[in-house]
Amino acid sequence: MTPQQLVATIDFRYISDALTAEEALSILEKGFAGRKSNEEILLKKGLPAYTTTPGWLGYTDEKMLHLTQEAVDAGFGLIKYKCGKSLADDRRRLAKIREIVGPDFPIAIDANQVWDVDVAIAWVNALKEFDLQWIEEPTHPDDVVGHARIAREVAPTRVATGEHASSRIIFKQLLQSDAIKVMQIDATRVAGVNENIANILLAAKYGIPVCPHAGGVGLCEVVQHLAMFDSVAVTGHHSQRVVEYVDHLHEHFVEPTNVVRGAYMPPKAPGSGAQMVESTIAEFVFPTGIYWSSEKGKAHALSSNTAHSSSDILINEKIGAR
Amino acid sequence: MTPQQLVATIDFRYISDALTAEEALSILEKGFAGRKSNEEILLKKGLPAYTTTPGWLGYTDEKMLHLTQEAVDAGFGLIKYKCGKSLADDRRRLAKIREIVGPDFPIAIDANQVWDVDVAIAWVNALKEFDLQWIEEPTHPDDVVGHARIAREVAPTRVATGEHASSRIIFKQLLQSDAIKVMQIDATRVAGVNENIANILLAAKYGIPVCPHAGGVGLCEVVQHLAMFDSVAVTGHHSQRVVEYVDHLHEHFVEPTNVVRGAYMPPKAPGSGAQMVESTIAEFVFPTGIYWSSEKGKAHALSSNTAHSSSDILINEKIGAR
Repeated sequence: MTPQQLVATIDFRYISDALTAEEALSILEKGFAGRKSNEEILLKKGLPAYTTTPGWLGYTDEKMLHLTQEAVDAGFGLIKYKCGKSLADDRRRLAKIREIVGPDFPIAIDANQVWDVDVAIAWVNALKEFDLQWIEEPTHPDDVVGHARIAREVAPTRVATGEHASSRIIFKQLLQSDAIKVMQIDATRVAGVNENIANILLAAKYGIPVCPHAGGVGLCEVVQHLAMFDSVAVTGHHSQRVVEYVDHLHEHFVEPTNVVRGAYMPPKAPGSGAQMVESTIAEFVFPTGIYWSSEKGKAHALSSNTAHSSSDILINEKIGAR
Repeated sequence: MTPQQLVATIDFRYISDALTAEEALSILEKGFAGRKSNEEILLKKGLPAYTTTPGWLGYTDEKMLHLTQEAVDAGFGLIKYKCGKSLADDRRRLAKIREIVGPDFPIAIDANQVWDVDVAIAWVNALKEFDLQWIEEPTHPDDVVGHARIAREVAPTRVATGEHASSRIIFKQLLQSDAIKVMQIDATRVAGVNENIANILLAAKYGIPVCPHAGGVGLCEVVQHLAMFDSVAVTGHHSQRVVEYVDHLHEHFVEPTNVVRGAYMPPKAPGSGAQMVESTIAEFVFPTGIYWSSEKGKAHALSSNTAHSSSDILINEKIGAR
C-alpha cells in the first residue's frame, strides 16, 4: 500500500491534536524510501525478540534460573520477569538473575497492574540497583495521569504499557504526557489493524519505540506482522524495538512463529497468522470438542470460575501462570 | 449507614493517590454532623433540577423557544441545549434563547463528544458572548488530557463531563488534572452505587460539584438517590448542584420522579427507583411484548440498525432526539 492508502485506513477522530493526516503522510513517505532495504534486512535478520518464558511468578528460583540460562543460550537479548507480589521476593529473584546473566544483560519487569500509583513508585525505586530496562503495567491501564507521575518519579527506569490500552485515545494521552518510553501495542485489544496503524504512527511522531505485547494464544503469530510493518514501512530497523515472545502453544497454528536465535523471522504465508490447525479446533472447541468429555477436560470446565475462558485454561495448563 | 460503613463499601484500588480511606472517612464524618438538617431541607425544598427538554438539535427554533419559555415558567433554574452540528446554528439558536431568557439566566451546552480537541476550543470560544454555564462532553470521554487542555483554553467557560466516564479511575484523573468544574456521574455507567460513592467523595475532596446526568429511561428515577445522598451525607445543600431532568417516560415507573417548581422532591418508597410498571413490561418487552406485533412495532424493529435497543426506540419516538 502507498503512504496515501495507509493514511486513508486511519480514523483520525479524537487524535488530530496529536497526529494529523498530513503528519502521518509525512512519516509514511519518509518510511517509504527505505522499504526495499528494510525488507531485505527483515528477511535476512528478522526482528529482535525478548522472552517472558522464564519470568512467571509461580516458578521456583531453580526453574526460573534454569530457564533464564536457556533463554540467554537461545540468543534472546532481553528477558522479562513478573513482579509485585512481594518486594523481598522481587529483590531475591532479581539478585539471583543478575548473578546468572551478569550486570549488563537487559532485564525488564512486569507488574500486571497490581499497584496503586504511590506503591508503584516506592516499589520500583527499591529495585533501582538491578538496572531494569523497564517497568511494565505498574498500575491501571486507563490511568494516564498515574503513569505520567510514575514515569517522572522512577526515572531513569522507563515505564512501559499498552497491552490493555483500549484505544488510540489512551495511547495518544500516554505519549502526550510523556508517560511511557516503551509502547506495547497488542494485536487484539484495539479496533484491529487500522487502529494499530494509528498507534504505530502516533509512536513514530513522539519518537517512542513500539515493542508489541505477545504471549497469549496466537498473539505472537498475529502481532509480529504489526512489528514487521513498522520495521519495513515506518520507523525501520533500530535497536529500541524488541517484540515479546513466549514459547508455548505455537503448535496449534497453521503458520507458527519462527523464532531463530532470539529473532522473529518473517512468515512466508499470506494472512494474519491467526488460523488454527483443524485438529486443535476439533479437540478443544468448547463445549463440543473431544477434550471436554475427557476426565481432565471435565475438571477444567468445573474450574471455570477462576479461569476466564478455554484459552486461559490452555495457557494456564502449559505455563503454570499467575 | 455510618461513615465507617460507607467507607467500607468503597474499593480504593487505583484511587489511593487521590483519595485515601482516611480522607474519605473525614469527609463523611464532617457530612454526618449535618445529616438531620440536610434531610429536613431536602424533604422541604428538594434538589434543584435543570432541564434538557427544550434543547434537542432536531427541534425548530419555534419549538425550542416555546419549550424554553415553558421551562422558565416551570421554575427550572438552568436549561441545557445540544450543540456542535453547525457553529452558525449554535450562534443563531443561542442568540434567540438569550432574547427569551435574558442575559442572566443560566444556560449550558452539550456537544455529546462530536469534537476533536482543537475544534472544541475554537468552537466554544466562538460562543463566549452567550455566557454559558458549561460546555458538556466536548470530546472523547476517555481523553483526560484533552479535557484538561480544553478547560484551560476555554476558561472561564467551565467544562463538564462524566456520563460516559467508565470508572472512578477516569474521574480521578479528570479531577487531578483540573479538567472539569462540573462532574456528571451517571447511575448506570460505572460499577453501581459503590463506585458512585467513591466518585462523589473524590469530587468532594477536590471541591467540584456533582451534577448528575439523567434523562434516559429511568435515569432520573435512579440517579436522584445519589444526588440526595450527596446532599444529605456528604457536601450538603449548596448552589452549585443541579440535577439533570428530562420530562419523558416517567409514567413507565412504579415510583416516578416528582419534580415540583424545578426541584426533585425525594421519593418516599424504598428501592432504587428502577422498577417499571407491569403493563409497560407486558407491552414493550422485546420481542414478545404486544407492541412488537403491531404495525408500528414491526417498523421499529426493522429500523433497529440505527436504534441501539428497544429503550432507544422508546426515547427516540418520544423526543425526536439527535
